[in-house]
Amino acid sequence: TKTYRIAVIPGDGIGKEVVPEGVRVLEAAARVYGIGVDFEHFDFASAEYYQAHGQMLPDDWFETLKGFDAIYFGAVGWPDVVPDHVSLWGSLLQFRRHFDQYVNLRPVRLLPGIVSPLAGRAPGDVDFYVVRENTEGEYSSIGGKMFEGTDREVVVQETVMTRQGVDRILDYAFRLAQSRPKKHLTSATKSNGISITMPYWDERVEARAEQYPGIRVDKFHIDILAANFVLHPDWFDVVVASNLFGDILSDLGPACTGTIGVAPSANINPEGTFPSLFEPVHGSAPDIAGKGLANPIGQIWCASMMFDHFGEKEAGAGVLRAIEETLAAGEHLTRDLGGTAGTAELGAAIAERV
Amino acid sequence: TKTYRIAVIPGDGIGKEVVPEGVRVLEAAARVYGIGVDFEHFDFASAEYYQAHGQMLPDDWFETLKGFDAIYFGAVGWPDVVPDHVSLWGSLLQFRRHFDQYVNLRPVRLLPGIVSPLAGRAPGDVDFYVVRENTEGEYSSIGGKMFEGTDREVVVQETVMTRQGVDRILDYAFRLAQSRPKKHLTSATKSNGISITMPYWDERVEARAEQYPGIRVDKFHIDILAANFVLHPDWFDVVVASNLFGDILSDLGPACTGTIGVAPSANINPEGTFPSLFEPVHGSAPDIAGKGLANPIGQIWCASMMFDHFGEKEAGAGVLRAIEETLAAGEHLTRDLGGTAGTAELGAAIAERV
Ligand SMILES: CC(C)[C@H](C(=O)O)[C@@H](O)C(=O)O
Ligand SMILES: CC(C)[C@H](C(=O)O)[C@@H](O)C(=O)O
Repeated sequence: TKTYRIAVIPGDGIGKEVVPEGVRVLEAAARVYGIGVDFEHFDFASAEYYQAHGQMLPDDWFETLKGFDAIYFGAVGWPDVVPDHVSLWGSLLQFRRHFDQYVNLRPVRLLPGIVSPLAGRAPGDVDFYVVRENTEGEYSSIGGKMFEGTDREVVVQETVMTRQGVDRILDYAFRLAQSRPKKHLTSATKSNGISITMPYWDERVEARAEQYPGIRVDKFHIDILAANFVLHPDWFDVVVASNLFGDILSDLGPACTGTIGVAPSANINPEGTFPSLFEPVHGSAPDIAGKGLANPIGQIWCASMMFDHFGEKEAGAGVLRAIEETLAAGEHLTRDLGGTAGTAELGAAIAERV
Repeated sequence: TKTYRIAVIPGDGIGKEVVPEGVRVLEAAARVYGIGVDFEHFDFASAEYYQAHGQMLPDDWFETLKGFDAIYFGAVGWPDVVPDHVSLWGSLLQFRRHFDQYVNLRPVRLLPGIVSPLAGRAPGDVDFYVVRENTEGEYSSIGGKMFEGTDREVVVQETVMTRQGVDRILDYAFRLAQSRPKKHLTSATKSNGISITMPYWDERVEARAEQYPGIRVDKFHIDILAANFVLHPDWFDVVVASNLFGDILSDLGPACTGTIGVAPSANINPEGTFPSLFEPVHGSAPDIAGKGLANPIGQIWCASMMFDHFGEKEAGAGVLRAIEETLAAGEHLTRDLGGTAGTAELGAAIAERV
């Protein structure tokens, strides 16, 4: 058996509560499917680490982490101690960029036993992926201020798109669409208003589409696309978007399926040159942190995506099945799902089913 | 009686069909409330004009329009003839910027007789405003390409925020919140990811909030804010946002209330130095254009907002009441509302009720 080396980084808030449940399920699945997993825990990328060291990560973080097969990540952000843009740009966003995790993959799926805020939608009606560009675009670190502190103050930030950056995320999305029965790709744009970068995005979608003749391609401006997530979530199969638009759509999609607390995401370096990173869509949730109430399903679903990424498809499917069965059974659910269980009880129930 | 001079610009597609219905209702309300209205029609800001002249507007558009009390606008955009970014930056976006219409005001309201896609929400549950910055921010015209046509191609676009631009939209939003019973302002941000302009936005929200001690202020990152429009639309009163975020939220909000086809918007120059512009949220809808099927309510609701802007509050309320009564009666509705009527029949029915 191959043994996978996994760096575990719980981070802040409920990250610390849900990650142990994810590890519990990972270990259970590894046992059942005969896979070796070897965990190493790290306390950096957290407010405590920041308080002790004045920075989010040790100087040698890149060397420390680069040899792992994957990073299993909780959540980062604790605004009382460190401003969000400092904590995020000091950790998660560095991982994404330096480990070239240029794909952020997020499933949007109506699950059994979860109440959707949308009227009249049932499991099976909604099942698509948001493929988000994860290293460039609107999340640039270039820009600055002038005439600071005066009435003339002006603040500028660049959006930067590169041919390489755009094409490789489009290619990933096209290939994902090819692997699915509907073979349908939707591009998120805003070329009517954002008049330089977004027309370029459209241009590259058109250019790359020529290589994938079997795929039906359409595009929507982000405003009406967001509206259509609510009005017609059944229209989508694979949705590809820039960094910012993907960020918005991959919270909105799970919200429409009622699953924001259970949604996973994979930050993937498809070439495998660097470790990929798996983290739930939800954040550190300071309001409920420390109470043992958090729903661990997003974190556990990440374990399924991690197995899939390793090519351990049976284990990946097994974990997802255990989640769905537990939800369908309606037992051991946390409060956000209408139950009374705590984080550990739900985690144990899912591990049990695995 | 004062006579208001109104420039009428139908634009493209269904703009040409809904604007006449709006004018019909405007005239009816003017008669009933003893208000003078004087219309002048213009055919520019349309694909036909572009085909004939190679540009969207005549060279003297600014001089031609600047003396009007308001611009009553349909929709622009006809991508088969002219790319969207050319048609929009050649017309609507010029009006917004040069007439300094720095407030884009969009109501989000559950109306009687309209089916919301959200489960279990009733009229009265959702009633808020999106206040969108309308002249700067992400909609800049600065940027460009380098290494064009090669693998090294890189495309840059600036987001530009100014102290003046940010403060005046915040002040407008704070004052609007002051005028409402809940006195609650929500700021849309993304300061965890967009690390230069959005922390600046937050900073100005905090600074301006000191001037409005009676207002409860909160902020959400745009991703979770979009999610909360779906999950908790009852949480909001006045939502203030940058140009792009406001664009997204003001399509998403109406989608959540099922009213995207009926939502209005006001592009306001609050000082009255230049004409303000009133246009429905929907676009030119090439797919249904020319068939007489379009729902004219968004355009008619704009007439109500225009009267409000003139200070003719009774006429404004009268038009809105006529819309609500017609919807509640459930007669003469267009297809998108579950009826069989055409554009003109619904327009005539609302004019009748006024
Ligand atoms: C047509 C487009 C440029 C415009 C915008 O993005 O501002 C529209 O979506 C709007 O909301 O008025
Ligand atoms: C925390 C934040 C910087 C991050 C992002 O915007 O990418 C988060 O919202 C996400 O989607 O992973």
